[in-house]
Amino acid sequence: MTRKELIDNIYRKRSFLCVGLDTDPKKLPEVITTNVTNDDPVFSFNKAIIDATAPYCVAYKPNLAFYESMGWKGVRTLERTIEYIRVNYPDQFIIADAKRGDIGNTSRLYARSAFEHMGVDAVTVAPYMGEDSVTPFLGYEGKWVILLALTSNKGSHDFQLIENKEGTPLFESVIEKSKEWGTPDEMMYVVGATQGRMFEDIRRVAPESFLLVPGVGAQGGSLEEVCKYGMIDGQCGLLVNSSRGIIYASLNEDFAEAAAREARKLSDQMSKLLK
Amino acid sequence: MTRKELIDNIYRKRSFLCVGLDTDPKKLPEVITTNVTNDDPVFSFNKAIIDATAPYCVAYKPNLAFYESMGWKGVRTLERTIEYIRVNYPDQFIIADAKRGDIGNTSRLYARSAFEHMGVDAVTVAPYMGEDSVTPFLGYEGKWVILLALTSNKGSHDFQLIENKEGTPLFESVIEKSKEWGTPDEMMYVVGATQGRMFEDIRRVAPESFLLVPGVGAQGGSLEEVCKYGMIDGQCGLLVNSSRGIIYASLNEDFAEAAAREARKLSDQMSKLLK
Repeated sequence: MTRKELIDNIYRKRSFLCVGLDTDPKKLPEVITTNVTNDDPVFSFNKAIIDATAPYCVAYKPNLAFYESMGWKGVRTLERTIEYIRVNYPDQFIIADAKRGDIGNTSRLYARSAFEHMGVDAVTVAPYMGEDSVTPFLGYEGKWVILLALTSNKGSHDFQLIENKEGTPLFESVIEKSKEWGTPDEMMYVVGATQGRMFEDIRRVAPESFLLVPGVGAQGGSLEEVCKYGMIDGQCGLLVNSSRGIIYASLNEDFAEAAAREARKLSDQMSKLLK
Repeated sequence: MTRKELIDNIYRKRSFLCVGLDTDPKKLPEVITTNVTNDDPVFSFNKAIIDATAPYCVAYKPNLAFYESMGWKGVRTLERTIEYIRVNYPDQFIIADAKRGDIGNTSRLYARSAFEHMGVDAVTVAPYMGEDSVTPFLGYEGKWVILLALTSNKGSHDFQLIENKEGTPLFESVIEKSKEWGTPDEMMYVVGATQGRMFEDIRRVAPESFLLVPGVGAQGGSLEEVCKYGMIDGQCGLLVNSSRGIIYASLNEDFAEAAAREARKLSDQMSKLLK
């Protein structure tokens, strides 16, 4: 999906919501697990969540850890989930939240996995190993790298804020350097919603880039703050993710309706905030 | 596997070789791919490589990218490979080279995948997201985190060498900080063989830790230099990995014998260097 298509989808749907499909196979509604004819309960759950939330979001982000925890069968479930979105909701932007990154020779294989095998639109990549670990993910037409910059977790303070001799924190060095590798038409950054005013610093170094923003909801980030400091007028420039707050809004029979309700609530807020 | 068991294996076999099972499904010997009854050619290849090299090494390190590039079927092949080593060569230390790392909630799932599902001894972890992305991998008895410190690739210079205001490069900050999270009985570091004399700096901050050393062979690192600056007397403290140099020593019918020959060559050198 191109940048223009993504922006068009956002303004058409008046939403920049990304639903995180972080489905823990050990945490499913009883109505799903007690269905004895169900040979792939995680897929059934995802399918119901997707059907319920698709009107309110523009992107889905399965985190690969949740699927890998079930071994190869989980990876098959992931592939079925991606295929289901692709076929039934072709205007959704699909992000493999993988946080991959390895030497060039090996990152090429991860890129093959994400873009050629799974067929997602974007993959999250960890920057620690530098240029040749990131660039193999670039150069696929209409595909995106989403590079970790300033993450939403407590541990983000351990290394990402370390300042170099000129006072530049690591996450800014990551953005500055990576701008030499890819354009805002093919590279986004992960910036946690929990980072509040840091979005001003981010926008100083990445004025045009889309930001993938986790941390709204269960992790406590504020949507208003993110938009105030992070939104780009007329282009949005944000994909705000919520995972647990939506998919686990209820674990009762109404789990899908509850997910839709939470997604719609966020989408309504986004509609008002969209400039 | 405990640290003592690993060290015992190294001195018994007079080798600290780790064979990297980076099997590219698109690069297999003809004798494997033309076997029409073969429904899992990568596994057949791995099996032959493992049987041929096991006498000369103490560890195997499949890199997950190569298996994921084939989707869920590749992950099934990976699981079969790990199971094969576990059953037939129980004294081998198995490393899932995954370079994972995510927020705590998610890293826990990656740990579940590596240690509970695949049953490997160790997993490589990327440090960018800090403490809560790493610690969920710790606390499994006899299991290890191998944290990226100073990698073997060109891109390692982009961020890992950035010095903070006190002149400490990032990779040293990573080691210093992570020593608060885990002991040398459960945490190793990745240090590329291509980094030569930097091993002196590493040993200053991590005098007791095992180092997983890629980059000998195809990437050009020197085994002698690594041992001169990195070895710990009486404990070795090194696992030196070779992937392509061994598994792709030949693509002809003699591929397994060629792999054994290369592994033996390295193992013979290691025997002489082992103090």
